[in-house]
Amino acid sequence: MSDFRQQALDYHSKPTPGKIKVELSKPANSVKDLALAYSPGVAEPVREIAEDPDLAYQYTAKGNMVAVISNGTAILGLGNLGPLASKPVMEGKALLFKHFAGIDSIDIEVKHRTTEEFINTVANIADTFGGINLEDIKAPECFEIEEALIQRCKVPVFHDDQHGTAIVTAAGMLNALEIQGKNLRDSIIVCLGAGAAAVACMELLIKCGAQREKIYMLDRKGVIHTRRDDLTPHKMLFANNTDKRTLDDVMNGADIFVGVSGPDLLPPETLQLMAPNPIVFACSNPDPEIKPELAHEVRDDLIMATGRSDYPNQVNNVLCFPFIFRGALDVRASAINDEMKVAAVEAIRKVSKMPVPEEVLAASHTDSLSFGKDYIIPKPMDPRLCATIAKAVAQAAIDSGVAKLETLPDGYME
Amino acid sequence: MSDFRQQALDYHSKPTPGKIKVELSKPANSVKDLALAYSPGVAEPVREIAEDPDLAYQYTAKGNMVAVISNGTAILGLGNLGPLASKPVMEGKALLFKHFAGIDSIDIEVKHRTTEEFINTVANIADTFGGINLEDIKAPECFEIEEALIQRCKVPVFHDDQHGTAIVTAAGMLNALEIQGKNLRDSIIVCLGAGAAAVACMELLIKCGAQREKIYMLDRKGVIHTRRDDLTPHKMLFANNTDKRTLDDVMNGADIFVGVSGPDLLPPETLQLMAPNPIVFACSNPDPEIKPELAHEVRDDLIMATGRSDYPNQVNNVLCFPFIFRGALDVRASAINDEMKVAAVEAIRKVSKMPVPEEVLAASHTDSLSFGKDYIIPKPMDPRLCATIAKAVAQAAIDSGVAKLETLPDGYME
Repeated sequence: MSDFRQQALDYHSKPTPGKIKVELSKPANSVKDLALAYSPGVAEPVREIAEDPDLAYQYTAKGNMVAVISNGTAILGLGNLGPLASKPVMEGKALLFKHFAGIDSIDIEVKHRTTEEFINTVANIADTFGGINLEDIKAPECFEIEEALIQRCKVPVFHDDQHGTAIVTAAGMLNALEIQGKNLRDSIIVCLGAGAAAVACMELLIKCGAQREKIYMLDRKGVIHTRRDDLTPHKMLFANNTDKRTLDDVMNGADIFVGVSGPDLLPPETLQLMAPNPIVFACSNPDPEIKPELAHEVRDDLIMATGRSDYPNQVNNVLCFPFIFRGALDVRASAINDEMKVAAVEAIRKVSKMPVPEEVLAASHTDSLSFGKDYIIPKPMDPRLCATIAKAVAQAAIDSGVAKLETLPDGYME
Repeated sequence: MSDFRQQALDYHSKPTPGKIKVELSKPANSVKDLALAYSPGVAEPVREIAEDPDLAYQYTAKGNMVAVISNGTAILGLGNLGPLASKPVMEGKALLFKHFAGIDSIDIEVKHRTTEEFINTVANIADTFGGINLEDIKAPECFEIEEALIQRCKVPVFHDDQHGTAIVTAAGMLNALEIQGKNLRDSIIVCLGAGAAAVACMELLIKCGAQREKIYMLDRKGVIHTRRDDLTPHKMLFANNTDKRTLDDVMNGADIFVGVSGPDLLPPETLQLMAPNPIVFACSNPDPEIKPELAHEVRDDLIMATGRSDYPNQVNNVLCFPFIFRGALDVRASAINDEMKVAAVEAIRKVSKMPVPEEVLAASHTDSLSFGKDYIIPKPMDPRLCATIAKAVAQAAIDSGVAKLETLPDGYME
């Protein structure tokens, strides 16, 4: 067994199984404490909440509690291994919520027969929480699930594999375009992969200014075009009225490549076909669509990002999901809407342009990091991410009318 | 607003809302830690669990995690106020699980249209947890719900309002009978109330030796007898072939009265009808079926218990549920069966006969407590409850063949 594999198993099993635990946030030492926490004292908040459901935010842990929910149908790059096998990932996500944003988070793994049954199950328990983070649910079901749950739940529902990825990608992309002297509106974009992350990335780039007709999305069968009759509704949105059929066809003169597909699917010869000063986000994990060393060898005018922490410019969802929920919870937003997503994009960009603190340099094992080709995306441990993103998201929730609390507290998270 | 009411609301809202929080049980400080906790390290336990689902107990928090689940249809004595209003009670239960037995516990409030939908929802999320504690669900639906979930879930499902109450009642009752020089087999038992707790108490007393035909159960309409045509299936089990119709009819010569009904429903004149050395468990909360002062005035040969902490002999579920789950989780029992319930009854009796430690006396504001008429039930803060009950329950799980781990570890919880 490899050393890292053994370390990972040990980390998960020793000294206790798993990664999260529940603790009391109130004293329970005296008979008096217990009389307040449980019978008879607990009857008081019960009566208050029965009168006014919003008081659940005042008297229970709801307002800072996010459920990480999966059915295990698309676990990391491992595929459909079922709900129970997804538990370490969901607990890991809960750990990240707490560590990075102070959000109490618990995982829920759901088994179900039909998509409708999954939706009903989550909708039925949703009021328990301040927000729902969906995770590792395969496409195309994930689209129907997220849409239905947004309709039915009073709390924010966010499918991180879609929107977390899209937000970090868009932030890095806009920075890369700025450095390359390009803009989204005029860019020709190739998206290799047509799953949940691909669709969400392209939709968000469009909201940030990209033109739908300049986007070429490819699935296993090649370019998604208007004359294909095998398209799901979400692929249909990206059907391009074009005669181009292959990756080479569309990469010829393209400005941007976004890969959410599989290892080594972008050959160096294809990369050579791109327009000057190209941008390549090769996000297949752990093995990108093209290795950064190889890509830079072929194109020295390139900006490149991957999903890996051992190369520059890591597209990592943890830059977004803890903080977008932090902002949403802080103003009791009823949803995470497009305005909030775009605010998160701009906030991430803002952090990448701030001088990098010593602690981040040390953790990144480097002497300096400054905005440029090898630093278009902040590092996950950057302590300014939380306040910057949460504040921008909370403000956007207020401005777009989905926040319950309508002003940020004085000095909010400064 | 009364002082206690304000204290209870303050306890629940200050300095943070609610009573529980989630914390990490593993380090997450370095880039290495995060690589083990999440991508790429987390893939290792995922693969292991996909191969062997039992390894979820080794690599995740499942094995020490109990969900406290309610639909809020029978909240304390407050009635059907809906799922969200029940949240403070369920969080309170989670707090008690952690405080008394070190069990990580999280509340889930379920909204639903049909009973079937409630059952499906809970069954679909059950694998997330090591056990399910159902709470504050009204009769008669609670019977169908518990039965169906026991069938469908691989983990223990326990409706505390039924079985927790029954176990503590049976323990106190057997002790009281011993002191009064009586036995269950020959006792005439009157049960005022025919809800979930009443049915479960009587069923468990039967398992401990009581004779069904010597039990008289009463609902709002009087004695439940074989000629009534308005009985639910669970009341039918207690339909007595008798001409007696009123409380006075059945109390005449009765040995035992169990009240799970409402305040002041046992008049002193009725108490006077009981046999010599009677036993009265007046468990309506906060106001018992008869006030202890009044009862003792009428009958000086009485042993009496209530649900209140300010009188001797408190029937309090917290004496049981944290510890019965502790035992069940420790051997990965697939159910909490009758053998385990009876083992819990005997373990509680055992603790009540041990010399009481100083700390318990101090917390009870008394100089001495010893087994007798005013001390038939241990105090909730007795530190010997956890080890004594958990060990007995775990052993019973092993002996009855529902435990996954088939031996107790050396020195288990001693």
